[in-house]
Order: sequence, then structure tokens, then C-alpha cells
Amino acid sequence: MQPVNIGIIGLGNVGSGALDILAGNAAAIEQKLGFPLKVVAICSRGVDGKTFPSAFDGVLRTADWREVVNHPSVQIVVELIGGTTTAREILEAAILQGKPVVTANKELMALSGADLWRKSEPRVHFAMEASVAGGIPIHAVLREGIAADRITTLYGILNGTCNYILTEIEEHGTSFDDVLLAAQQAGYAEADPSADVDGFDARSKLAILSTLAFGELVSPGDIFTEGIRRVTPVDFEYAHQLNHTIRLICAARRTPAGLILSVRPSLIPQSTILAGVRGAYNAVWVRGEFGADTFYYGRGAGPHPTGVAVVSDLMRVAREMRQASGDRVSPFAHAHLEDYVPVPVTVHESAYYLRFRVEDKPGIIAQLATALAAENISIDAVLQLPNANWRNLPFVITVEPATEAAVRAAIARMAQMNFLIEPPLAMPIEKAL
Amino acid sequence: MQPVNIGIIGLGNVGSGALDILAGNAAAIEQKLGFPLKVVAICSRGVDGKTFPSAFDGVLRTADWREVVNHPSVQIVVELIGGTTTAREILEAAILQGKPVVTANKELMALSGADLWRKSEPRVHFAMEASVAGGIPIHAVLREGIAADRITTLYGILNGTCNYILTEIEEHGTSFDDVLLAAQQAGYAEADPSADVDGFDARSKLAILSTLAFGELVSPGDIFTEGIRRVTPVDFEYAHQLNHTIRLICAARRTPAGLILSVRPSLIPQSTILAGVRGAYNAVWVRGEFGADTFYYGRGAGPHPTGVAVVSDLMRVAREMRQASGDRVSPFAHAHLEDYVPVPVTVHESAYYLRFRVEDKPGIIAQLATALAAENISIDAVLQLPNANWRNLPFVITVEPATEAAVRAAIARMAQMNFLIEPPLAMPIEKAL
Repeated sequence: MQPVNIGIIGLGNVGSGALDILAGNAAAIEQKLGFPLKVVAICSRGVDGKTFPSAFDGVLRTADWREVVNHPSVQIVVELIGGTTTAREILEAAILQGKPVVTANKELMALSGADLWRKSEPRVHFAMEASVAGGIPIHAVLREGIAADRITTLYGILNGTCNYILTEIEEHGTSFDDVLLAAQQAGYAEADPSADVDGFDARSKLAILSTLAFGELVSPGDIFTEGIRRVTPVDFEYAHQLNHTIRLICAARRTPAGLILSVRPSLIPQSTILAGVRGAYNAVWVRGEFGADTFYYGRGAGPHPTGVAVVSDLMRVAREMRQASGDRVSPFAHAHLEDYVPVPVTVHESAYYLRFRVEDKPGIIAQLATALAAENISIDAVLQLPNANWRNLPFVITVEPATEAAVRAAIARMAQMNFLIEPPLAMPIEKAL
Repeated sequence: MQPVNIGIIGLGNVGSGALDILAGNAAAIEQKLGFPLKVVAICSRGVDGKTFPSAFDGVLRTADWREVVNHPSVQIVVELIGGTTTAREILEAAILQGKPVVTANKELMALSGADLWRKSEPRVHFAMEASVAGGIPIHAVLREGIAADRITTLYGILNGTCNYILTEIEEHGTSFDDVLLAAQQAGYAEADPSADVDGFDARSKLAILSTLAFGELVSPGDIFTEGIRRVTPVDFEYAHQLNHTIRLICAARRTPAGLILSVRPSLIPQSTILAGVRGAYNAVWVRGEFGADTFYYGRGAGPHPTGVAVVSDLMRVAREMRQASGDRVSPFAHAHLEDYVPVPVTVHESAYYLRFRVEDKPGIIAQLATALAAENISIDAVLQLPNANWRNLPFVITVEPATEAAVRAAIARMAQMNFLIEPPLAMPIEKAL
């Protein structure tokens, strides 16, 4: 049978991984589809200096993405360059020509995916499995697998770099700075680590997943976001004492008021399956009103795991094209989307872990407890590690469920207490898992 | 928009759960699809005595399944009665009328699904997400989510009753018989528990998953199957000493010779995420040549988790019908299936755990070691729990990787040793995880 023809723009990690799969698994892909996927054009900056598997011998190679999008044979455009400027132009050009798009671009999809998709007439596919959680097919799961459920809570570990850093701190007692430096030297972390360690990458992914899971068009800017820079080895010691661990948790919770969304380091019980997610792995835990809890786990990144997502999307879109049907289950479909009013995280109620570093003085606990009581927050426990004293090691107060607003107000009261060496570190203690 | 009309046959746990979701989540389902799903006919033995949500007020209720299949408005037939006799007639009748089928029937699908589906002309949908692993959308994952990968290994925990019994034995040191009895009294286990505890239910599920994952039409009868009746609390003590636990593992491995398939209690490392599957949960762990390892986890059964699978299938099939396309990605599609030559489990190589109960005599270890050496099997360790002696507690020999055939031959040699109180219990020690 005639192939479906593909143009690929961007040959970084993901693009190279996708090409490996398209070449290395071509026979099985053709067997499953009943027709082959054929790469007819490849765009990359340094395309002349690259070598390709012989499967791509006759393929157009260019440094100009327009040649790919405008190529008369190209039926699906694969955008793998990332960023929000050129990538947006590529998508706009593809839409103008009615060509479906497969993309791994979480940032662009989270910011403008719905706007771009709505410009397509007739609707083209925007397939973006690769944009979230690398090798985990969480889009397929939410779009089709558990489509009938009404999701109430979604927790994700969506940034592999952060999870790697946190588990290194946990397992080796190394400081954040030292782990980050080692990760950068080994090529696991970017020279500018902010997008990862400050939570922005995870935030984009949570916005996309929330749109898909809850049918609300979430803006990344509405998501309360806090990174992992302040998490120290001693926080893991205290967390373990509480039978918990610490992960950068992307949380989306359906409440009567609307969705409450946050990306922040959080304590989760060691008994939950989510606590078993170590190193650069990603995971998503979903609770539905009907299906109860399900959990999905895999590599968060890497050329081949993410390449599987890209090529699986290509297979799905190619199948749909052969059936001449448009994108029926886009995360951005009008039929999915509900009106969305951002709910501030301040109304969210949770138990909290508060960690203090102080200069030794009498009456510290009394003053901190007074600030908490003034906001009607009940103390659950005061923890101090063995062999510690108030001076050389931080101590921890855990509090019973209170709103984020109350906890922030109490922390504001503490700001005037001159025995504090640094502001308290507050992390929610997740009970739902 | 006009609804897609549905007929449901069977109102046990799964049928009732599906109805709850069709009634309780109707608005969200219509929003996602752009049209409603409408139940127009329900068949159940005691249908007159049952009460239904008011959403189903005008629905045809009958005890004769033919009235549902033949109903001129019914566009999709949902078969939820189980078994292989009437269910087969229902499917054959639906096919004759060109009506797609949604089913939770693992036994029938594993035995005859492909034969039945191939009789349909044009091809109708056979959607069977609910047949395996309840609330885990493993069909959607394998069919679409990671379709581009070439799967090399699949491990499943696919029988919730067995997993519940094993984790009860593990956590409370209770005997198999006592746990089973308690489970039966609580309604968690069937009066005739054989299908569960002897592995036959899990075997059907592994056959279906293997067909989907590897594109080979696996017959349940070709799968080596061993239940959990012989697993004792002391086996968990030894397994823990080895940093492992014991689960009923459904394994499918792609080898150069073909697929090697087995359902049997196995030792798995406690560090693997699969070891965190406790109680009635199910899970599937998949390794692909490109996507590396992914893992899927959720409720193995229950009206609502399984109902989510049924209704999600209904949504997919209804979407496809609106697009007037046949079943393009059936697990039984010709294009998927490769010639399949069953590979006997005897060629599989693994480390093994061998547990012995003996009468105290001199020279026992020497004789057992001689039997192993005669089959070229190397001993890894000899384990005895503290405070045990050869008489009152079993002991364990672990051996280095050997073929199942060699291990069986060694065990056959041991059969003549009259100090054995019962045949040795042999379980593979899974290293791939």
C-alpha cells in the first residue's frame, strides 16, 4: 500500500530517536498499520554534516523548515525543535496547508496549543504524546483508555532532572548544589537549570495534562510553582522519620470551586507506589470517581522513549488520515473544554511540613507556636533529629490540615522573629495517595 | 446530535458498574464525544426484579439476549455475561448483523476471539479493554500509546485474588488455606477458587495481552501455568532474606526462538516497582527495545474500575462508527499477527529458588547437591532461617541460571530421595526487572 509521507523538523535527541525507530522498526510498524510510514524530508541546522541510516538515503535534507512544510508529498509535519518562536511559525504554516502536526513541544502546547489548533479549519491533528512524560503514554491513557472516568485528582512526577536530583540527595545525603553540578558535568542537567529545577518545565506539562484530564484549558501562568532548590538532605531525614519522602509533585485537584493546581516539593507517604519513582523516571497517578486509582510509570526523557511517543503518534495520525477523519479527540477540542476559572492555591487545605533554621535562643518554639495559633493552625508534631541541637541542625514542625493562605499568614508573622536564619521551608504533606 | 445506541447483555458486577457510569457521567461523556451514548436495551436473567437509575426508564428490558442483539436501534452490543457458550452465540449473532461488540470476556477472547473476529465481514470492532486488568487501560497503551515500540518482555500481575492472597500470606504469615477461606467468607474469592488460584484466569489474560503486545496469536493452552497453592509463609521469609518477594507473575518474553510464556509464582526483587503491587491490585510491566521500561497499575477488578474500561471502549467504538470506519487496530487484525510456534518453557533460562521439606538425616545437602551437579546446575546459596533445623522448617537452595528443563531433570532425580516429605517447590528468580 501507498505510504503516508512524513517531514521531520529538528534532529536533536528526540528527532534522532524517532528516526532510529522509523528505520529500525519499519517492518513492524508497516505490519501494524497495513501501510508504511515514509520519511520524505528532514530539516536540521547542521543537516549536511549528519549521517543517516541508509533507510533515509533519498530523503530531502534541508536547513529551511519551509521546504519541509511546503513539500507537496509531506502529509504529516513533525516539529521537534522546541521553543515558542520558530516552532509556532512551523505550526501555523502546517495548519494553513491543512497538514497534521506531531510535536514534543510542551512549552508551546501549554502556552498556545489551543489557540493554534482552533485556527485550523478543518481541524488538523495536534498529536503531542511526546510533550509530557517521555515514554509514558499518558495521553493515550487519558484520551482513550480511561476516557469514561471523571478524574478528581492527578499527581505527576514530570521532571526527570528534579527527580534525579531529589533521589540523589535522598540516597547520598549530597547537597542540591553538589548534585546539580555533578549532573551538569555528566550532561544530565542543562547549563541553565532554571526551567527544570525551578519547576517551569513541569508546570507546562501539568497544564497540558490538566487540559486533557479535566477538559479545562489551563494556563501555565495560573499554576502555583515552586522549585526544589531549598530541599536539603536533612529534609529527607525528617521526611523519613515521618515515613514519607519528598518529590516535586505536580498536582491537579478538582474541587467544587474549580481546579487547584500546583507544582512544588511535597511530602508523600513512603507506602504509596508514587514514592517508588526514583532517578530520572517520571510517573502519573490518577484518581477517578469511578475507576479509583491508576498509576503510570516510565522514562521521562531520552531519545528512544520519547521517540516511541513521537512515532506512536505518527501511527495514530496516519491511521486517521487514511480514514479521512479529522482530530476527533484533541486535548484542545471545543467539545472537551469547560469554562475555567483559576482557583488560587491559597484555598487548598493540607497538612504541612515546616522546617526552620534558627539561632539558639530560649522561647523559640513558644513564639513559633504562637504565630501558628494566631492563624488557627494546630501543631501535629515538633521533630528534632537525634544528636541535633537548635543551633546546628534545622528542626521541623508539622501541622494539621490548614489552608495554604493560613500557613502563609503564619509564616508572614514569623518573618519578624529575628532568630530565624532563613525563611521557613513549607511543604504540603500529601494524604490522598 | 443523534446518540449512538447501545444494548447491554449481563447485569452482574461489571454490567451494573457500566450502567452507573453511563448514567452518572453522561454529561461528560457527551461533552467529550460530541454526541450521547444511549442505552436502549438491557438483558439480564432477573431483569424484572431489578431497579435502575431513572436515566434508563424507557429502556427495553428483557431476559432474552436475542431481543437486544436483534433490536433495530442497537448499534453496539455489550456482552458482559462471561463464559464461552451463550457469550459465543451472542457474539456470532452480533457479527452476523455487522454490530460491533464490547466485551469483558477474557476466557472467550483468549480461546476464540480471533476466530470469531475473522468471521466478521466487514470487520466489526471487538473492544475488550475490560477483559484484562480491570481499571488499567493496558489495551489502549499497547494498541496506541506505545504502538511504535518493539516489546521484548512483558510481566503482569493479572489476578487480583492471587495477589491479595499472596500479600496476606506475606504480611500476616497466614497459611494459603486460611487466607483463601477468609477471602471466600468475605466474598473476595469464589466458592470454586480454581480459576483464580490455579492460574487459569491469569493465563487467559496473558494470552490476550501477548497477542496485542507481540502480534502473535497465543493459545492459552500453550502457556505453562502453575498456581499459588504451594506458597507458604516461610517462602516469603526466605524470599525477604534474598531481598525479593513472591508474586504470581504472568511472563511473556520474546526470544530468537519465539515467545516463552508462563504463569507461575516467582521471586521478584523488592527494589522493583512491581514489588509494590499489593492486595487486589493488578499491574503490567513492559520492556520495549526502544521505549525501555514502562509500568501500569490499578484495580484489577470491581464494578466501577472495570466499568470505566467498558464505557471507554464504548466511547472509542462509537467515535469510530460515526466516522464509518471498521476496527483498524483489533488485537486480532490479520496485519498484526505473526506465525506463532509455541516455545516450551523448558528452554527458558533463569535462576531458581528450590524449597525442600525433609526428614532429618545425615547427607541431605550432599545428595541434593549431587542431583543438581548431575544436571550441571551450580548452587548459588543454601539458606536456613535462624532458629530452624532441618526437621521442623523447610530450607532453600538457590541456583545460578539454568534451563527449566535442567531444573526439572534435577527434581526428577530427587524424587527417589526418601528423606523428602514433599516434592521440592521450584520458583524462578526474575532478574530482568
